[in-house]
Amino acid sequence: MIGMNTVEQWQRYELTLSGPTDGNPFMDVQLKATFSLNGRQVTIHGFYDGNGQYKVRYMPSMTGHWQVVTHANVSELDGQMATFNCVAATGENHGPVIVAGKSHFAYADGTAYLPFGTTAYAWTVQSKAVQAQTLATLKDNAFNKIRMTVFPKSYSYNTTEPAMYPYVGAPKHHSDVFTDDLWRVKPEDIGFDFSRFNPEYFQSLEDNIEKLDQLGIQADLILFHPYDCWGFARMGKRFNHLYLRYLIARLASYKNIWWSLANEYDLMASTGQIQLDEWDDLGQFVHMEDPSQHLESIHNFYDPPVHKATTANWYDYSKPWITHLSIQSDNVFFTAQWLQEYQKPVVFDECRYEGNIEFGFGDNTAHGMLDSFWRIMLRGGYATHGETYIDKPNTKRPIWWAHGGQLYGDSPKRIAFLRKLLADNHFDYIKPQGLRAPSWELAAGSNAEETKFLIYIGDNQPEFEILNFLPTAADFDMTVIDTWNMTTTVYPKVINAQTCFQLERKPYQALLLTKKM
Amino acid sequence: MIGMNTVEQWQRYELTLSGPTDGNPFMDVQLKATFSLNGRQVTIHGFYDGNGQYKVRYMPSMTGHWQVVTHANVSELDGQMATFNCVAATGENHGPVIVAGKSHFAYADGTAYLPFGTTAYAWTVQSKAVQAQTLATLKDNAFNKIRMTVFPKSYSYNTTEPAMYPYVGAPKHHSDVFTDDLWRVKPEDIGFDFSRFNPEYFQSLEDNIEKLDQLGIQADLILFHPYDCWGFARMGKRFNHLYLRYLIARLASYKNIWWSLANEYDLMASTGQIQLDEWDDLGQFVHMEDPSQHLESIHNFYDPPVHKATTANWYDYSKPWITHLSIQSDNVFFTAQWLQEYQKPVVFDECRYEGNIEFGFGDNTAHGMLDSFWRIMLRGGYATHGETYIDKPNTKRPIWWAHGGQLYGDSPKRIAFLRKLLADNHFDYIKPQGLRAPSWELAAGSNAEETKFLIYIGDNQPEFEILNFLPTAADFDMTVIDTWNMTTTVYPKVINAQTCFQLERKPYQALLLTKKM
Repeated sequence: MIGMNTVEQWQRYELTLSGPTDGNPFMDVQLKATFSLNGRQVTIHGFYDGNGQYKVRYMPSMTGHWQVVTHANVSELDGQMATFNCVAATGENHGPVIVAGKSHFAYADGTAYLPFGTTAYAWTVQSKAVQAQTLATLKDNAFNKIRMTVFPKSYSYNTTEPAMYPYVGAPKHHSDVFTDDLWRVKPEDIGFDFSRFNPEYFQSLEDNIEKLDQLGIQADLILFHPYDCWGFARMGKRFNHLYLRYLIARLASYKNIWWSLANEYDLMASTGQIQLDEWDDLGQFVHMEDPSQHLESIHNFYDPPVHKATTANWYDYSKPWITHLSIQSDNVFFTAQWLQEYQKPVVFDECRYEGNIEFGFGDNTAHGMLDSFWRIMLRGGYATHGETYIDKPNTKRPIWWAHGGQLYGDSPKRIAFLRKLLADNHFDYIKPQGLRAPSWELAAGSNAEETKFLIYIGDNQPEFEILNFLPTAADFDMTVIDTWNMTTTVYPKVINAQTCFQLERKPYQALLLTKKM
Repeated sequence: MIGMNTVEQWQRYELTLSGPTDGNPFMDVQLKATFSLNGRQVTIHGFYDGNGQYKVRYMPSMTGHWQVVTHANVSELDGQMATFNCVAATGENHGPVIVAGKSHFAYADGTAYLPFGTTAYAWTVQSKAVQAQTLATLKDNAFNKIRMTVFPKSYSYNTTEPAMYPYVGAPKHHSDVFTDDLWRVKPEDIGFDFSRFNPEYFQSLEDNIEKLDQLGIQADLILFHPYDCWGFARMGKRFNHLYLRYLIARLASYKNIWWSLANEYDLMASTGQIQLDEWDDLGQFVHMEDPSQHLESIHNFYDPPVHKATTANWYDYSKPWITHLSIQSDNVFFTAQWLQEYQKPVVFDECRYEGNIEFGFGDNTAHGMLDSFWRIMLRGGYATHGETYIDKPNTKRPIWWAHGGQLYGDSPKRIAFLRKLLADNHFDYIKPQGLRAPSWELAAGSNAEETKFLIYIGDNQPEFEILNFLPTAADFDMTVIDTWNMTTTVYPKVINAQTCFQLERKPYQALLLTKKM
């Protein structure tokens, strides 16, 4: 048995034991461990990592001398004991991201965290070269969350088989021309044994998640999705639970994990994958299984305000296992309403990617993508970037949204500018500021103390502005921000709620107001 | 008594009688007339037009020899008889606009009518020069509906007293600097006698409505509005009914009249004007009083999909007196849903005006205004233009949206291009075409026979398109439309639902597809 002696708070403690290799270790061996500190106890599942190696992992959140004891139905793994010392976090280790207040996030140590997400669903199953390139691209940009899948992806522009699979077996057939019919894989066409994981596949995933953590990036990990031609989206309840238990045993100790139960869950019922009434059980299962209570949500396809007359329903985000809204919508005007209704953070994880593919979700301009970030954030929500540029029809060049690789677009550096602007001005989160109806008014928010206001004018073209929603008794210094050209210009006069001022005539401007003390 | 001998179908028959001038002719004299044709009878109210002249007007919809007999509580007006011959309509007389099918409009004779509205609320109370300029501007453009108020308007940029008032009396006070408080006029500050109309005011209004009809323009006449500092928005039920009866007696015979019960009715309750529960009575009153059953609706301020959590409510457009939705919203994605829900035409009478004033409703670009027309119309609805350009803060130059006058913007001629395109291609209305969700997909619609499709790409930037919602068995000729530069280019190949085709990279393109027979 190999255990660590010392581990930093919120870092991963790992215990490795040798055990049986015969039979099916994933099914036959039951391994748990109880971690104890000053009367606090938590019991968690271990997992089989192949080659006779069994592991138990835990992310301690409290400092002190922890004791560990194993329980197993195999004598060589049972009753093993270890101790380790959990010491205070150092450096860039702020712990996992949690919900703070009701509308926003923070690191566990209280450090501000505002998600600036991006999307590269199946990057961890691309070639090693593309994986490395993805990490290099992320390092050069300012995204601090990435949406990514556990399983490989079968979709338009996603027609290459992965080098590895999460389960023992092989695909029985595949096509390099995608059609939706591929998702309707029949039982007899499934070539995988869902009782036998491929540890190598998960080791590779973990390695990438660890590298993301080193870059300060949260892995918003999608556990199920409909883009499946192998059968991973139709394993049934028993193997879904087995998979979740295995995955959580492996990954819950990574402090930068978020659980995204599914991408576009509401597409899965009609193809005979996972039915609408199964999600609550799966969501609760993750919530119960995860000893570290990472963030958890579920992501829709149908835009409910538009489709409310159809049978497709918005997921009930009030369910207790859901920590935040992870939505697909471009109805950004609803942000403040949803914040009030659910009392949970609102993340627009899909709001039209910058790119030029033939689908509406992926032919937004850079201006449009950036505009969504400003409009959503200043209403108190968070936006997620994606990029879908192709050279020409049916190119095989990696597309960031699906494969990672390189970014070609014009929005990422401008999103980075917004992130820096908020950090430089100590916005721990943005409090939406109620404006005169109707809905098309300026987007505006403030810091918690209402000493700083941000107002986004977007592509409107007012000759002048009067910000009559400001506190009436206060004067403000003003900086005019060109969100596209990434410049800030100090306005020469002090303004207040009654000041009428003119701006240069150009689109995508914003204003930063700082209350004079 | 002077009656006409011959009147064209849907034109105005007018009977003039001399009667008493003493007392209060508006209140004391009750005058009606019964119109009969082949056993059909309709009895309608006459009105006092000043100078001892009483009139009865009627718009006959059936040809034949009509008989008229008057009833009055004054002997000299009672029992008068007349006959006239109603002959078939000629030339550009297609009758009033009515609802056709469930989603669209047509003239009474079946000629197609697609509303292309504009907005100049108080143009008929501006100087004679501005009124003439307004009509000249309308003649030079392609709008065929105009939203306009009966009463004068008190609002930002609307601070000049009109030359005439609709009632006998004079304003007790007014300010040339507008604030919302002006709308809270107290009873003791009302200087008008609501029992005595000023016929000259209504004659001027009628003259302008007649001139609109000669230009082929529908007068979408707003009967009440909150922008009032004189008391016309707080006359009480009795005088509201008196006003409506008088107005309808005067105007229901104008074939180009639409009744817009109120503009922004939902702003009127909080200022003590007309309460929310009063509108249904007023709406029904108009419906019962109008012998010609003109179109009738009511227009909101609050955008209900956004404000549904507030106390402000969307008006119940399912009420039987409401012929169509007349809404303020920029949630154009809801168009098809509202069509389905209400089974009535959907008109976005306010969706952000082209201009540069400081309010969100009036700082849209020309691109944005044009974009709304395409996005709304191709989803089966109708849009209304408005223009709010100012030279600089607080200019007194007429602004089209409020005063009429001149147009300075770049959207009107492009809206005219769209109107001509639809007419040239014989779109009697546009049938929305269901597209793949989510909501941000292309806007697309067809003609009733589904032999012509229009697809709007807007500011999306797809490298290519596959229009897989087209009928699968059909081939189409395609014309690429540059909606901004107003050009059409024939695409060199035949396309079908599976064709992948590339477009020049530029924004605001649309496609017209014509099915090959």
